[in-house]
Amino acid sequence: MVNETQQSCSASSGSRSDGGSSSGSESSKDNSRCSTPVLDADRHERLREKMRRRQEAGDKWFSLEFFPPRTANAAVNLISRFDRMGAGGPLFIDVTWHPAGDPGSDKETSSMIIANTAVNYCGLETILHMTCCNQTKDDITGHLQKAKRLGLKNIMALRGDPAGEEWEEEVDGFNHAVDLVKHIRSEFDDYFDICVAGYPKGHPEAESYEADLRHLKEKVFAGADFIITQLFFRPETFLKFMKDCQAIGITCPIIPGIFPIQGYHSLRQLVKLSKLEVPQEIKDVIEPIKDNDAAIRNYGVELAVSMCRELLDSGMVHGLHFYTLNREVATTEVLKRLGLWTEDPRRPLPWAVSAHPKRRVEDVRPIFWASRPKSYIYRTQEWDDFPNGRWGNSSSPAFGELKDYYLFYLKSKSPREELLKMWGEELTGEESVFEVFTCYITGEPNRNGHRVTCMPWNDDPLATETNLLKDQLEKVNRRGILTINSQPNINGKPSTDPIVGWGPSGGYVFQKAYLEFFASSEIITALLKVLKKYELRVNYHIVNVKGQNITNAPDLQPNAVTWGIFPGREIIQPTVVDPVSFLYWKDEAFALWIEQWAKLYEEESPSRMIIQYIHDNYYLVNLVDNDFPLENCLWQVVDDTFELLN
Amino acid sequence: MVNETQQSCSASSGSRSDGGSSSGSESSKDNSRCSTPVLDADRHERLREKMRRRQEAGDKWFSLEFFPPRTANAAVNLISRFDRMGAGGPLFIDVTWHPAGDPGSDKETSSMIIANTAVNYCGLETILHMTCCNQTKDDITGHLQKAKRLGLKNIMALRGDPAGEEWEEEVDGFNHAVDLVKHIRSEFDDYFDICVAGYPKGHPEAESYEADLRHLKEKVFAGADFIITQLFFRPETFLKFMKDCQAIGITCPIIPGIFPIQGYHSLRQLVKLSKLEVPQEIKDVIEPIKDNDAAIRNYGVELAVSMCRELLDSGMVHGLHFYTLNREVATTEVLKRLGLWTEDPRRPLPWAVSAHPKRRVEDVRPIFWASRPKSYIYRTQEWDDFPNGRWGNSSSPAFGELKDYYLFYLKSKSPREELLKMWGEELTGEESVFEVFTCYITGEPNRNGHRVTCMPWNDDPLATETNLLKDQLEKVNRRGILTINSQPNINGKPSTDPIVGWGPSGGYVFQKAYLEFFASSEIITALLKVLKKYELRVNYHIVNVKGQNITNAPDLQPNAVTWGIFPGREIIQPTVVDPVSFLYWKDEAFALWIEQWAKLYEEESPSRMIIQYIHDNYYLVNLVDNDFPLENCLWQVVDDTFELLN
Repeated sequence: MVNETQQSCSASSGSRSDGGSSSGSESSKDNSRCSTPVLDADRHERLREKMRRRQEAGDKWFSLEFFPPRTANAAVNLISRFDRMGAGGPLFIDVTWHPAGDPGSDKETSSMIIANTAVNYCGLETILHMTCCNQTKDDITGHLQKAKRLGLKNIMALRGDPAGEEWEEEVDGFNHAVDLVKHIRSEFDDYFDICVAGYPKGHPEAESYEADLRHLKEKVFAGADFIITQLFFRPETFLKFMKDCQAIGITCPIIPGIFPIQGYHSLRQLVKLSKLEVPQEIKDVIEPIKDNDAAIRNYGVELAVSMCRELLDSGMVHGLHFYTLNREVATTEVLKRLGLWTEDPRRPLPWAVSAHPKRRVEDVRPIFWASRPKSYIYRTQEWDDFPNGRWGNSSSPAFGELKDYYLFYLKSKSPREELLKMWGEELTGEESVFEVFTCYITGEPNRNGHRVTCMPWNDDPLATETNLLKDQLEKVNRRGILTINSQPNINGKPSTDPIVGWGPSGGYVFQKAYLEFFASSEIITALLKVLKKYELRVNYHIVNVKGQNITNAPDLQPNAVTWGIFPGREIIQPTVVDPVSFLYWKDEAFALWIEQWAKLYEEESPSRMIIQYIHDNYYLVNLVDNDFPLENCLWQVVDDTFELLN
Repeated sequence: MVNETQQSCSASSGSRSDGGSSSGSESSKDNSRCSTPVLDADRHERLREKMRRRQEAGDKWFSLEFFPPRTANAAVNLISRFDRMGAGGPLFIDVTWHPAGDPGSDKETSSMIIANTAVNYCGLETILHMTCCNQTKDDITGHLQKAKRLGLKNIMALRGDPAGEEWEEEVDGFNHAVDLVKHIRSEFDDYFDICVAGYPKGHPEAESYEADLRHLKEKVFAGADFIITQLFFRPETFLKFMKDCQAIGITCPIIPGIFPIQGYHSLRQLVKLSKLEVPQEIKDVIEPIKDNDAAIRNYGVELAVSMCRELLDSGMVHGLHFYTLNREVATTEVLKRLGLWTEDPRRPLPWAVSAHPKRRVEDVRPIFWASRPKSYIYRTQEWDDFPNGRWGNSSSPAFGELKDYYLFYLKSKSPREELLKMWGEELTGEESVFEVFTCYITGEPNRNGHRVTCMPWNDDPLATETNLLKDQLEKVNRRGILTINSQPNINGKPSTDPIVGWGPSGGYVFQKAYLEFFASSEIITALLKVLKKYELRVNYHIVNVKGQNITNAPDLQPNAVTWGIFPGREIIQPTVVDPVSFLYWKDEAFALWIEQWAKLYEEESPSRMIIQYIHDNYYLVNLVDNDFPLENCLWQVVDDTFELLN
């Protein structure tokens, strides 16, 4: 919106989704994230169902609109914004259709690919906008088929802008949004949830406010499931519109579009595009402070909060749709002040669930990709089934190769210069690598005063849970046990535990202690001797880049390392150490040394050769302590190893 | 054998089986029972593999030979003998082919059906004998196909007895066991494990001992996997035979057939049939005590033990095959004295695993049939898959109807007169029914001095585990909460716990407390009020015979009530409370009132009408306390209910 053209200021609507259905006491907590592990392939709900349930439960909700980025770097940033804003619990997000940006293409900046990323890689219920004018039916059908294939389930059906000044209706063409709604229903039956735009002041091109209401009714009767409105400046504008809609028989949900004013220029541009008039009382406030961005934003937040309160208090509004302009601060602030921003510490599963409908029954993953869920999703995107079918019980998984490190949703958020500051402009030996790992663990600045906030294997700072192990991790990294993944053992903590909890409330979660690291062959030789003492208690896999592989895993069976017991349900075991997929992970884990680290340096440079040496000669190790009720013995294993080395 | 004819005194051999494969430290513990949950459909092992592994591990083993019973009542007894003797850990049992008894038919006394029952209902690795003379190829092929269909995997290939005195070889017919071996291999490839008979003294009809050895070699080279010998009286007889076999190139396992002398007459009959000669030193002992059965049996045990010791000590013998004559005492005594009888308290799963190869991946069952596993196996015998496929995650199970209460392997071990003594010759009201339940729980005699050792829902005395709940169970049964199934909560006991443990060692087992009972509608009304207080903690299903059903199970999902966590494996959850299958169980549970109890009495008799009244008016209830780490609250639920009633 806003930076598309007039109808871009309508927002989006709902379709069925990821399967985050929940039951009982939690049914009112749906948001864009899957809220409960779903064990039944047939029980997934559509966005319109979630909306209805939230309304019935009296829960208020919000949604967020974004436009596609203009550059690949901006795409990387947008995806991390999705992750951050997704954490606040939107019921859905929507992505506008940008006709000038090749919106249906495979470009990383296309509407289609951004929506695809939001669904599949960020796990968000997502609506894709689509405009129809100046496009053939075949084009449109092609876009819709592609959207369906990618796992998108919701379409915001819009007319879009006529190409020239003198637009004429085409016979048999798409002339209005209603044509697109009809087309979707006739070609795709009830597959998509469809949203349409409503104009509280009437569409600027409409003959009259009443005529525009009739157009809206047509769109709804053609099959739209709900309405999102263009922005407006006064709550009474929306409330009157809503009553007028109801009066002519529109009964579907109508969601007000909220535009927190964020700056003088964006407001002016918006007003121009949407042909809306800014009320005098707002102009009066803004003009005097037009050069003070912070002041305008504060005012915008204030105004939005007060308008939203009035809307919610009317009892007629259950959800609010925010035009974010791809910015975080203002919208987040409004939502927090309204009490709608709910960073639910509860996770449906220990890992981020994808919202692709095909993956909605996915309930187990290897632990290896814990910090790289997007890479895991990418590498398994061609699977028809998710465990148990495809892997799990020793059936062979077939992971896609990871050659596409350039893909924007797999890239590091940090640019090269920052990475060099964190990981060292110049390495002097393996020890300087140990230091980088150690600084990442401790959070202390490195010798040049920079904090190490990410590693090739983990684009985010240490997880809260890993923090529980910080002291031990620091000690071992200093000595060359270069840890990239770990979890403490947990013996029956409540599923609502803020740090290690996940799944429905009333349950208990468990973990086996896990430690994964790179280490030199000297350390491995000692480690193997030590492991003999722990033969039955500790399972291990040790592998180098050439695939030399040492393990005591019985029969290549997966070892469950995270599980939960819940009222009235089967056991859920979402994380396993799987010997087969470990060999796929191994390729990726070793490659990250080169792709993300070594390549920061000149070819043949000493720094690059140090990383290359580690890549060529170190081993990747994972250890599981099976005796989860006892004290974690893995630190003892490591201590014994160091002792043997001395 | 013995009571077939001469070659019936050879015993049987091995085939692949139930899938009780285990790994690592347990591989030397194979016996006829599945020793470890198998999670991989492709990893099941053949009897010959088990035998090889036991030999490599230096473990000694035994096997047991039975003949088919003559009457249906004897079949019931034989099956419970299978269960009892199976508990001692035989590597396999075998069932002789009784040509005069229609051995391939569906009669409950046929060799085929007895072997089928041993495999499918008792979970025993089983060899079916088969004789070939006087039968057409088509007959034989038909028998083998049927055996395969029923899940039998091992055949003991024998010639059998010629029909008349003047037997002549038939051209193209089966004249020798070797013909049958060849036929099995040509028609069924490597599907069956094949065993053949060896004669330590030479077959009585053979031209010479040496000629007989050559025949044996032919049988082995035609595809037999191992040899079981005719009985013999002196260890040196066997050891010489074994050396002679090896000398001519027979390298497969040769298992000595052991016949503990159990009585004067059976010995005489055997000698006549097998044309063996009893050594003078044995005759000298037996003749003077020929009328003293106990003395002869003691002598027989002594003799067998000493012979077995000598065989085992020779280092050439790894397994012993016992001709039981369908009796328990002597063989069990010999085995115990040899230290081979190992009542392994470890169970692979909490329920008895079927040895049918199709069921080898079965790893979850509803708790309802816990005391009626044979009925569960019967009702699910037509399933192609076992959970998760067929039921589990709300896919609909299709249980066969249970109309066949007469089937010998589903019948009570106790005859009608005994049941009447236990359950009352005459009932005076519902209270006398409460009394029967209470006496079953307490183990104390009823008012007529008879102990109640079984109930319609449980043909065995109270399980050791249930004993943990005895005091509470007694209290509630006295007051009309008529319990038929229960388990305590368990929060992580070692998998080797002698009472509640199961699965591989080094693991931990868990349970949610479970209680299942019949109760009057008055009690149910109060119970439902009480359950409101426990809404999230306790899941319940309450149903009457008409199918009126009250539950708080979320979305009809199964509730896992038993699970285990093991080193290097996925979580195993072998028992669930499944809302769908509960409705199938309900039909069976209510029908047992009528079929097993009411029908003991005359039609229209007051006793029968009392049972009929309970059947028509009571509810069947199951309760699960989801909070397994806390103290079981189900007793409090029941107490609250009684309090509300007062």
